[in-house]
Amino acid sequence: MTAGEPARPVLVLNGPNLGRLGTREPAIYGSTSYPDLVDLCQRAAAEVGLVADVRQTDHEGELLGWLHAAADAGTPVVLNAAGWTHTSVALRDACAQLTAPLIEVHISNVHRREEFRHHSYVSAVATGVIVGLGVTGYALALRWIADHA
Amino acid sequence: MTAGEPARPVLVLNGPNLGRLGTREPAIYGSTSYPDLVDLCQRAAAEVGLVADVRQTDHEGELLGWLHAAADAGTPVVLNAAGWTHTSVALRDACAQLTAPLIEVHISNVHRREEFRHHSYVSAVATGVIVGLGVTGYALALRWIADHA
Amino acid sequence: MTAGEPARPVLVLNGPNLGRLGTREPAIYGSTSYPDLVDLCQRAAAEVGLVADVRQTDHEGELLGWLHAAADAGTPVVLNAAGWTHTSVALRDACAQLTAPLIEVHISNVHRREEFRHHSYVSAVATGVIVGLGVTGYALALRWIADHA
Amino acid sequence: MTAGEPARPVLVLNGPNLGRLGTREPAIYGSTSYPDLVDLCQRAAAEVGLVADVRQTDHEGELLGWLHAAADAGTPVVLNAAGWTHTSVALRDACAQLTAPLIEVHISNVHRREEFRHHSYVSAVATGVIVGLGVTGYALALRWIADHA
Amino acid sequence: MTAGEPARPVLVLNGPNLGRLGTREPAIYGSTSYPDLVDLCQRAAAEVGLVADVRQTDHEGELLGWLHAAADAGTPVVLNAAGWTHTSVALRDACAQLTAPLIEVHISNVHRREEFRHHSYVSAVATGVIVGLGVTGYALALRWIADHA
Amino acid sequence: MTAGEPARPVLVLNGPNLGRLGTREPAIYGSTSYPDLVDLCQRAAAEVGLVADVRQTDHEGELLGWLHAAADAGTPVVLNAAGWTHTSVALRDACAQLTAPLIEVHISNVHRREEFRHHSYVSAVATGVIVGLGVTGYALALRWIADHA
Amino acid sequence: MTAGEPARPVLVLNGPNLGRLGTREPAIYGSTSYPDLVDLCQRAAAEVGLVADVRQTDHEGELLGWLHAAADAGTPVVLNAAGWTHTSVALRDACAQLTAPLIEVHISNVHRREEFRHHSYVSAVATGVIVGLGVTGYALALRWIADHA
Amino acid sequence: MTAGEPARPVLVLNGPNLGRLGTREPAIYGSTSYPDLVDLCQRAAAEVGLVADVRQTDHEGELLGWLHAAADAGTPVVLNAAGWTHTSVALRDACAQLTAPLIEVHISNVHRREEFRHHSYVSAVATGVIVGLGVTGYALALRWIADHA
Amino acid sequence: MTAGEPARPVLVLNGPNLGRLGTREPAIYGSTSYPDLVDLCQRAAAEVGLVADVRQTDHEGELLGWLHAAADAGTPVVLNAAGWTHTSVALRDACAQLTAPLIEVHISNVHRREEFRHHSYVSAVATGVIVGLGVTGYALALRWIADHA
Amino acid sequence: MTAGEPARPVLVLNGPNLGRLGTREPAIYGSTSYPDLVDLCQRAAAEVGLVADVRQTDHEGELLGWLHAAADAGTPVVLNAAGWTHTSVALRDACAQLTAPLIEVHISNVHRREEFRHHSYVSAVATGVIVGLGVTGYALALRWIADHA
Amino acid sequence: MTAGEPARPVLVLNGPNLGRLGTREPAIYGSTSYPDLVDLCQRAAAEVGLVADVRQTDHEGELLGWLHAAADAGTPVVLNAAGWTHTSVALRDACAQLTAPLIEVHISNVHRREEFRHHSYVSAVATGVIVGLGVTGYALALRWIADHA
Amino acid sequence: MTAGEPARPVLVLNGPNLGRLGTREPAIYGSTSYPDLVDLCQRAAAEVGLVADVRQTDHEGELLGWLHAAADAGTPVVLNAAGWTHTSVALRDACAQLTAPLIEVHISNVHRREEFRHHSYVSAVATGVIVGLGVTGYALALRWIADHA
Repeated sequence: MTAGEPARPVLVLNGPNLGRLGTREPAIYGSTSYPDLVDLCQRAAAEVGLVADVRQTDHEGELLGWLHAAADAGTPVVLNAAGWTHTSVALRDACAQLTAPLIEVHISNVHRREEFRHHSYVSAVATGVIVGLGVTGYALALRWIADHA
Repeated sequence: MTAGEPARPVLVLNGPNLGRLGTREPAIYGSTSYPDLVDLCQRAAAEVGLVADVRQTDHEGELLGWLHAAADAGTPVVLNAAGWTHTSVALRDACAQLTAPLIEVHISNVHRREEFRHHSYVSAVATGVIVGLGVTGYALALRWIADHA
Repeated sequence: MTAGEPARPVLVLNGPNLGRLGTREPAIYGSTSYPDLVDLCQRAAAEVGLVADVRQTDHEGELLGWLHAAADAGTPVVLNAAGWTHTSVALRDACAQLTAPLIEVHISNVHRREEFRHHSYVSAVATGVIVGLGVTGYALALRWIADHA
Repeated sequence: MTAGEPARPVLVLNGPNLGRLGTREPAIYGSTSYPDLVDLCQRAAAEVGLVADVRQTDHEGELLGWLHAAADAGTPVVLNAAGWTHTSVALRDACAQLTAPLIEVHISNVHRREEFRHHSYVSAVATGVIVGLGVTGYALALRWIADHA
Repeated sequence: MTAGEPARPVLVLNGPNLGRLGTREPAIYGSTSYPDLVDLCQRAAAEVGLVADVRQTDHEGELLGWLHAAADAGTPVVLNAAGWTHTSVALRDACAQLTAPLIEVHISNVHRREEFRHHSYVSAVATGVIVGLGVTGYALALRWIADHA
Repeated sequence: MTAGEPARPVLVLNGPNLGRLGTREPAIYGSTSYPDLVDLCQRAAAEVGLVADVRQTDHEGELLGWLHAAADAGTPVVLNAAGWTHTSVALRDACAQLTAPLIEVHISNVHRREEFRHHSYVSAVATGVIVGLGVTGYALALRWIADHA
Repeated sequence: MTAGEPARPVLVLNGPNLGRLGTREPAIYGSTSYPDLVDLCQRAAAEVGLVADVRQTDHEGELLGWLHAAADAGTPVVLNAAGWTHTSVALRDACAQLTAPLIEVHISNVHRREEFRHHSYVSAVATGVIVGLGVTGYALALRWIADHA
Repeated sequence: MTAGEPARPVLVLNGPNLGRLGTREPAIYGSTSYPDLVDLCQRAAAEVGLVADVRQTDHEGELLGWLHAAADAGTPVVLNAAGWTHTSVALRDACAQLTAPLIEVHISNVHRREEFRHHSYVSAVATGVIVGLGVTGYALALRWIADHA
Repeated sequence: MTAGEPARPVLVLNGPNLGRLGTREPAIYGSTSYPDLVDLCQRAAAEVGLVADVRQTDHEGELLGWLHAAADAGTPVVLNAAGWTHTSVALRDACAQLTAPLIEVHISNVHRREEFRHHSYVSAVATGVIVGLGVTGYALALRWIADHA
Repeated sequence: MTAGEPARPVLVLNGPNLGRLGTREPAIYGSTSYPDLVDLCQRAAAEVGLVADVRQTDHEGELLGWLHAAADAGTPVVLNAAGWTHTSVALRDACAQLTAPLIEVHISNVHRREEFRHHSYVSAVATGVIVGLGVTGYALALRWIADHA
Repeated sequence: MTAGEPARPVLVLNGPNLGRLGTREPAIYGSTSYPDLVDLCQRAAAEVGLVADVRQTDHEGELLGWLHAAADAGTPVVLNAAGWTHTSVALRDACAQLTAPLIEVHISNVHRREEFRHHSYVSAVATGVIVGLGVTGYALALRWIADHA
Repeated sequence: MTAGEPARPVLVLNGPNLGRLGTREPAIYGSTSYPDLVDLCQRAAAEVGLVADVRQTDHEGELLGWLHAAADAGTPVVLNAAGWTHTSVALRDACAQLTAPLIEVHISNVHRREEFRHHSYVSAVATGVIVGLGVTGYALALRWIADHA
């Protein structure tokens, strides 16, 4: 990032139950809490010249609205849609409208878990997918966006 | 419509992402905007003696509430449930309670698209289905309701 | 339709067993007879400035021939292929050659019936599909063609 | 329940469309209304020394929030997730965080109904399941919780 | 059959390739020729007071027409639809209109053959099915009709 | 049957629950009682020069034993294996050892019933199958055996 | 139960391997022994005015016989069919004849176990199902019967 | 071909829609017209000492009749059954009776197209299959027949 | 086996139809009779210091009982469950209780036979499996047990 | 081939086990040996103005290398990938890079053999496929290449 | 083995990763190292009059070559193809050419592991299969070969 | 990386066809050549204090060997197995032996491509997966390893 260039915005969107990170099944998701995650993302973004707006919602409609706004503003998105990943066509349709890059992130390695977690409605409309690398996956996604978006 | 007979109400309900019509993937959904669609429905309804209340929501719970009200009032419904069509049993259950006709409408021809769009949870509890005829599909649905409801 | 403009032709093609409409399982298909259907289509067509040539056949080869002629003449087609809908790739191939619009119509709501009626070989090569709206479905299809073809 | 021991809280959570119980398809769900159900649960709970907080929502996000709170407070849950039972991984993930018992209840015998109602995302993370015993199923679930939680 | 009572008509309808019986794969279908089969059916029918009209066609449309006529006249039908058994929904729809009994007959034991011969579109709309008993199957079907139709 | 020729034995074997015929779901199986069935088989057998030994068991092992004895004695068998038809490989293996003809009989038309009744482990090792012709199916099977065994 | 009213009989039927309860895989089924289960059922029945006849068998035919008797006497049944639950159509057919209520019980939560334990042939012909609530499931079933049978 | 040896006959049979070759979807089938194809086959046949009788039909029954005649006369067959390839068991049964070689030909590479075009009912009863080599596939088939039949 | 050490018991259990070995389909199972098999097992056992108790039953309940006894006594088991292998969850549940080794044996190579013989409910709860090595498979199983149990 | 024009190269590549042609299952693959095949291909190529480089390998990596070289040189390829046809995505990926035509050849009619031989990973990236015409299939492929490449 | 009779050769072939036995996942495969396995096989072979040539390779092509040589020499083979068991048709084709017995061995019980390990391409062309008996499985296979080859 | 600390080794392993990167289908894989990729990985590794040994092979056995060595040395691995990802159980077994982290990388977004590319045998035994982020995916994987291994 050249000095004087304004930091570019990026949305980091988290789906259902992720607000309870750290509390929730630490054997699967690790001990980082959701506030820790927000902090980690903001610092990782800053490091690569981005300003991360980190949000979480348990309401699908709210997530759709955030994606609509990102589509309108051309903002890149890092998305961990949690359980909706595997079930929501509405989410896929909202993601398909994005023009800036979309990186799908999963904290745990979903391929080691139940069969129904192996399919994602998001992946085919995402730019790329990062799975199983813990919360560091968000940082890698942000770094990729900084380099490519 | 005989003069003096009050216009009959009909609900035209639209599901997730449809508020962005025109913006959203015009190659698939055409260039009509959502306000255009509202206008088109209201005029098409008026033409056949109906008063169309056209709504859109990205919140499943809100759509369920509208359907509950329609069930209570015996209002006919034209429904484009978008992505929820293929995934929501809750939606199907709400539709199953309607007693006035329910016409399912899809703007694009879902049968030319991904496999997962070929199945609808709504169809089996709808009166009928109109697919792929663009926004005109809404007008045809309203005309049918005017004649049969 | 502007005065003086010659009425435009449209083909309304019906597949196997539909000649027995009214006789056949009225609980499913209603009491309209096949001659009634012919009459209804012709009147509905006239109303929107079309001349409907309504035909029915139990011989697949004959239906293919009609579709070939429609392809050559650029005639729009309303098609209720009945049982062949679900089984005939030859029919799909003939439909795929049409350049004017093709509207697939089913009188009954096939999605409430046996699983094998839920898939249509025609839909993916049709412009649109109208299902479950009774014989009125033909009239709506003709109206759409009048507006768009 | 020994005298003087404070009544223990239990959450009775109901998913989409259940607010219309009694109105909704009485052939399937019986004629008990939703207020009747609330009353029945509260009385059944009281009988076994529990205080039932009975809730219903058509918003998935709201149900997730209630489950998060139950997880935090260690409250046992009786859950009838209705249509979400068969489609929501987000719901399953929220249920998986509960530490007190979770009893899944369905009023109708889902195994006599459509194929898609035979699978539940909740069952594998529930303590147990009671199906088809009408609204009495809630009372039995509460009794079990009183004995085991 | 009481003397003086007129012989009752029955249709024995044979589908594609059956005109070549005896010629065709005798290891599977036996050495009885098609004229032998006609003869056998007529004699077996006569024995039980029926008059069998035995026909064969390689044209689906012709078979549909015969079934329509049988439906109109209330004539019982013995049907060996050969290859169409496994592929024709149009045939099933025509059979579904019959009111007199329909007995489906297959000369060979289709359950010992290719997987695709194990499913019949006809069986679910037939009165009963006789499989693998050779040409005698026709005679048994006629005997049943004589007793029950 | 030539005079003086000793009547030939045939086994008519019935599987689980068939002892309750007439009592059991008469809408599906008709009102003939099991003693009626025994009587009907014995008379039908006598008519064609056979002596029918009619048995019923709810114990799979007992049925296997009867089939073993039939295999040793070269006795033809008419078999209605009821529920075991769809589930017992052990039964299929016992049937496969028979050298005299085996006719599989089902009273009701299993193809109109649940999907799991459409497959039979017996059919592929039987000579032929008679389905849906009520208790008369047994008589037709005996007649076939009289002519061919 | 009003004083003086005779206790009503109920059958509690247990299928294969359940005689070894307590011995058998205690991690799955708990440490209650089969005699304990008998005792628990008898006491739970008595508490609600029923007399429980608790039986166990490893012979399918014996279970069928008990169900036939229950059908004849109109006795309600609590049934844990263990392994046969997933494999026996004969069992389903016997259950389908019952007119008094049938409650299917499983001690362990079958939905957490192998895929093949997720389907039950019994459920669709049972009144209701109680799963995963340990041996208490029997008591709840008896209580339901006392209230409804 | 030795001088004086009479040219051997071969049948080149084409199924539904192939009469429109050149007209029909040239992006898939190329620009050769059906008369061109007839000509090409006749010349290719002559080149290798065969006389090709090239036919096309949209009527399945007519194709069956041609195959029956070929079976009677021992004539080799080159068959492009088009859409019937994937759907007609009747066609397979007629092909199975041929004793001279049968070469199945498809102009386009069906394996690059829709899933339902990947399975052929004909292949398993054909001598061999040539796919995707355009109209030259017919010439290669004729050459093979000249060498082997 | 050290002199003076008492011979250790082992159960060799055979399921349905195996009592007819030698008689039954010798092309598949070989010509060894069941008494030969008993003899072979006893001698093979003796050779490696075991005493084989060889049994056969056509009654599932009897086999379950033998397995229960083996579980109680800690006896190793060689099991050829024949047809029940592929269909009996009850059998699997009984096998799962064994603590001494369980070797599953099949005389024929089930993987060369019908698809439904490729799956065994027993294998996943057995120590190991020996398939297709004829009656010698039993001897190898006994030898393994002698070395490992 | 015009005189003076240099012969054009073509690669004929054979996969695993094909080096043993003639030795290997002659009932399926015929008695032509691999050296015979080489000879046949070279002569057939020469006849149509090509120079065939015929190779065989049992090492997938070696085949990939040959395909890479063909891609670089723009050489047409005739490929019989034998068992890898059905299992190797790596092979498909290498084939997808070819720009000159690729003809897939199988000596036997794979559609008459095991189900797993009916799918080819190569076909969808090949120009065309020749199946079941024995070693002559190679000659036909070379002729096609001579005419089109 | 009679004195003076030369020891007969047998090939013991091991597929990918087996060279790391002992190192590799000892919880699954035990602690025997690969050199231990070679030694065990050679000693077990010697004990029954065979000379075992024990090999391991991570290159499929090398294994195919060994099988080709075994086919030429008529040498019996003990084969543990490890991961290729489930994926290699080329391996199956090479095995199918063997004329001396082929015994497939797996050290671990593949039926307790992932679904994809339950199917073997080798089994249907092997003489027999030994699974889950640890390295002793090789010794049993050698013993069987000594007795039968 | 603290000064003086020796750079840690990491293996970057590439499977079949990847040596042709840049040449191969640039629309899918981009224009970076394989030497560019090697360079990129080495520089990205150096940046985070690792020494990357970048290799590519078209021989599965060679890749297995490299993985064995990595397992012995405890070296972390970045693996792009290309086509083998979807087909090789042998590869999965080798990966399962690694103790240092394994990151699976795919350059293209496999979820947008053919269905068979959606399943990976590697993912379930990998630490994590990076898909669709182009060659930058390797750099991100190396960065993760630097932080966590």
